[in-house]
Amino acid sequence: MSVKNAFYAQSGGVTAVINASACGVIEAARQQAGKIGTVYAGQNGIIGALSEELIDTSLESAENIAALKHTPSGAFGSCRFKLKSLEDNKAEYERLIAIFKAHNIGYFFYNGGGDSADTCYKVSQLSEEMGFPVQAIHIPKTVDNDLPITDNCPGFASVAKYIAVSALEASFDVRSMAKTSTKVFILEVMGRHAGWIAAAGGLLEDYDIPVVVLFPEVEFNQDKFLAAVKAKVEQHGFCTIVVSEGTHWPDGRFIAEQGTRDSFGHAQLGGAAPVVANMIKEALGYKFHWAVADYLQRAARHLASEADVEQAYALGAKAVEFALEGHSSIMLTVERESSQPYRWNIGMAPLSEVANVEKMMPMDYISDDGYGITTACKEYLYPLIKGEAYPPYRENGMPNYVTLESQLVPKKLEPFDL
Amino acid sequence: MSVKNAFYAQSGGVTAVINASACGVIEAARQQAGKIGTVYAGQNGIIGALSEELIDTSLESAENIAALKHTPSGAFGSCRFKLKSLEDNKAEYERLIAIFKAHNIGYFFYNGGGDSADTCYKVSQLSEEMGFPVQAIHIPKTVDNDLPITDNCPGFASVAKYIAVSALEASFDVRSMAKTSTKVFILEVMGRHAGWIAAAGGLLEDYDIPVVVLFPEVEFNQDKFLAAVKAKVEQHGFCTIVVSEGTHWPDGRFIAEQGTRDSFGHAQLGGAAPVVANMIKEALGYKFHWAVADYLQRAARHLASEADVEQAYALGAKAVEFALEGHSSIMLTVERESSQPYRWNIGMAPLSEVANVEKMMPMDYISDDGYGITTACKEYLYPLIKGEAYPPYRENGMPNYVTLESQLVPKKLEPFDL
Repeated sequence: MSVKNAFYAQSGGVTAVINASACGVIEAARQQAGKIGTVYAGQNGIIGALSEELIDTSLESAENIAALKHTPSGAFGSCRFKLKSLEDNKAEYERLIAIFKAHNIGYFFYNGGGDSADTCYKVSQLSEEMGFPVQAIHIPKTVDNDLPITDNCPGFASVAKYIAVSALEASFDVRSMAKTSTKVFILEVMGRHAGWIAAAGGLLEDYDIPVVVLFPEVEFNQDKFLAAVKAKVEQHGFCTIVVSEGTHWPDGRFIAEQGTRDSFGHAQLGGAAPVVANMIKEALGYKFHWAVADYLQRAARHLASEADVEQAYALGAKAVEFALEGHSSIMLTVERESSQPYRWNIGMAPLSEVANVEKMMPMDYISDDGYGITTACKEYLYPLIKGEAYPPYRENGMPNYVTLESQLVPKKLEPFDL
Repeated sequence: MSVKNAFYAQSGGVTAVINASACGVIEAARQQAGKIGTVYAGQNGIIGALSEELIDTSLESAENIAALKHTPSGAFGSCRFKLKSLEDNKAEYERLIAIFKAHNIGYFFYNGGGDSADTCYKVSQLSEEMGFPVQAIHIPKTVDNDLPITDNCPGFASVAKYIAVSALEASFDVRSMAKTSTKVFILEVMGRHAGWIAAAGGLLEDYDIPVVVLFPEVEFNQDKFLAAVKAKVEQHGFCTIVVSEGTHWPDGRFIAEQGTRDSFGHAQLGGAAPVVANMIKEALGYKFHWAVADYLQRAARHLASEADVEQAYALGAKAVEFALEGHSSIMLTVERESSQPYRWNIGMAPLSEVANVEKMMPMDYISDDGYGITTACKEYLYPLIKGEAYPPYRENGMPNYVTLESQLVPKKLEPFDL
C-alpha cells in the first residue's frame, strides 16, 4: 500500500484542450510507475467519485491516451455539480474520502474552474482532519479565463483564436456583400461575467475591420451603441459586432432577456445576437446577419492554439510532478515571463487564495469608448493565440478524435445517494 | 485590338473558395498573356460592370493574386443584384455590352450560382445580336450545392466539412455534459431550399453520435420529431440536431417564422435553432444549447476542404482555357469519375440547360425516417470533404488573408443609372 493511486476528474464546461491536461496527467503518471499507482478517472467528473464509478485509465492503450491531446470535450465525462458547503453536507466530503481510502487514492487531480478549486481546497483540508491525507491539486481549465493569479487558463486561448479567426472570416464576407446586401454581422460569444472571449474580437481592428465589441464589464447603452455602429457603417460600408452573452443593461438584466414571447405567449429563449440584430434593424434599417457560436467555440479543437495545447498538457504533467514532490492544496498557474517572444513557466498558487475569486478584464484592457481593446490587451492576447495545433484527420476528411474504452473499476463500497 | 481583355465578376453569397476560382482565372490568363489581355474584375460584382468600376487585376502583385487561393470571401466584392429580364430592362444588358466594347472585353467569366448562370446566358445571346460577341463562361459557386449537371459546386464541400467537423466537436462536448447538464445540442445551418449542407450533419452517425437532421426536403412534423429526439436521448443520454434554416411546415411556412414578438410587440427575428430549442424545452424539458453558424460556415477558410480548393482553382483556370478554345455560353462542371478513390474531371454544360434549374437532395439520399442520410449520400459526401487545405498563418496567430489594392481603370463612358 505504499504507492498510492490517483484520482482525476473533469469539472464544469469542457474545452478543446481539457483532454490534453488529462493526457499530461496520465502520461506523466505512467512514466513514474514506481512512485504513483493507477490513475482512476471519475466518470462524469466528481459524481464518478461519489457514486464509485471510477474509470481505470491503465486499461486504455498508450495510443488512445496520446490521442486525448488532440480530442476536444471531456473524455471521461464532466458534470455541473457543486459540492455543498462542509456545514451543509459533510457526508459528501466524507464519502469522497471513503472512496479514496477504499481505492488507496492519495492524489486528487481536479481539472476545472472556480467551483472545482473550492472543492479541491475543502477535500484537502478535510482529508487531513479525517486522518487520510489526500494531496489535492487543481489543474485550471476554463474558457472564461476568469481564474485569479494564473496569467491565463487553459481552454481560453483556443476559444480566443477561434473567435478572432472566425470573426475575421465573417467580416471579410460581410465586406464583400455590403454594397447591396448585408452591412452588419453580429457574432455572439461566451463569457457571462468576464469579457475575455469577446476581447478576442477586438483584434480585428488590426486587420482594418470596423468592429464594435460589447463586454459584460461595460453597461450597455443602446443609443451610444447604435451611434457607434452607424458611424462605422457610414465610414467603412459595413461593421462587425462581437457581443458577449453577458452584455447587460445598467440594472443588471442581460440584453438577451428581452421578455420575448412566441405566438402562443410562451417565453422565448433569447440570444444576445438576435436582440442586437433587432435593435439595428429597427433603428438603422441595415441588413444584417447574426451567428451564435455557443459550443462550437469551446469545442473547436480543429483550430486550437498551439500555446493552449502545450500549456494544458504541461500543467497536467506538472501536476503529477508537484504531487510527487509532496505539494498539496495548490492550483497550477501559467506565469508569463515575456510576451515577445512569448515565454512562460509553470508556477503554483495556494488554493486558499484561488477559491471564489473571479478575474474580470482589467479596465485598462478596454478602450475608452468601451467598444474595443487597448494595445495592452492585444499584447496579452496575441501570444496566447499563436501557433496552430491541428488534430490528425482520417483518410475520409474527418478528425481522428478518440472515444475511450472507459472500463469501470469494481465497486467496493455501498451505494451513496447523491 | 486583336487580343481581347476579360471581365471577371463574383455574384451572390460568397464562399471560402470563390477567391480560389478568381486566382485560377487570373493566373491562367497571366500565363496566356499573348492570347488574352487584362483581366478586369467587377467591383462588387456585376454592378461594377454597369457602373464602370473595373478593378485592374494586372496591377496586383503575383503574391497577392496567389494569396487569393487561401483567402475567403469575395476579394473584389460581390452583390445581390439580378438583372431583370431582357424584356423588362434591355438597357442593362446593352450597358454591359457597351462597357465590354469600350474596354475591349471579349471574355466574360461570371462566378456565381443560378441567377448568374441566367445572366451569363443572356449576355452571351445579346452580345451576338448586337454584333459584339462576348464569350460568356459561368464558373459555378454556391454553398447550397443546388446547380444542375455538375456533380458538386465549389464552395459547398468546405461548408460540408466545416459543419461535419463542428457538429462532431460540439456533440463530443454535449456527450461530456449530458449526465447533469445539456442533453441536446442544436446547430442551425444554411440551405433555404436544398438540404445538402444539413446532410453533412448526417455523417455524425458514423462516429456513434445520435443525430437528427431536419431537411427542407422533408415537411416538418413536430410530434414525430420530438419522439425521435426523445428516443435518442433515452438510448444514448444525449442528442445532436442539425436543422436547416429551410425546415418548414407542411403549409410551406419556415419553422423559423414563429410570429414571435418582443416585449414592445415588435416582430422578432427568428432562427430555426431557438425555435427547435423551445419545442424541446416545452415538450421534453431537456437542457439544451443551440448555435447558429450563419456566415461562419461559408467563410470558414480555416477548415476548407482540399478537394474544394483544388476544384475551385481548377475551374477558374479551365474557364480561361475553354474561352481560348472558343467556347461560350457554358457552365463548367465537376464530373465525378469515381468515389473511391475520388477522381474527377472538368466538363462543361450548355448554359441553356443550367439556367433556372435547382438541384434538390435526391430522396434516396435521405433515410426512411427523414432524419438522416443513406449510404449513397455518405459515398457522395466523404470524397468532397477529404483533405485539409489550411491557409498560412502569421507569426501572431492570425491567418494571412489578403486584401487587394483594387485600383480602378479610368472610366470611358457616361454614368449609368442603376
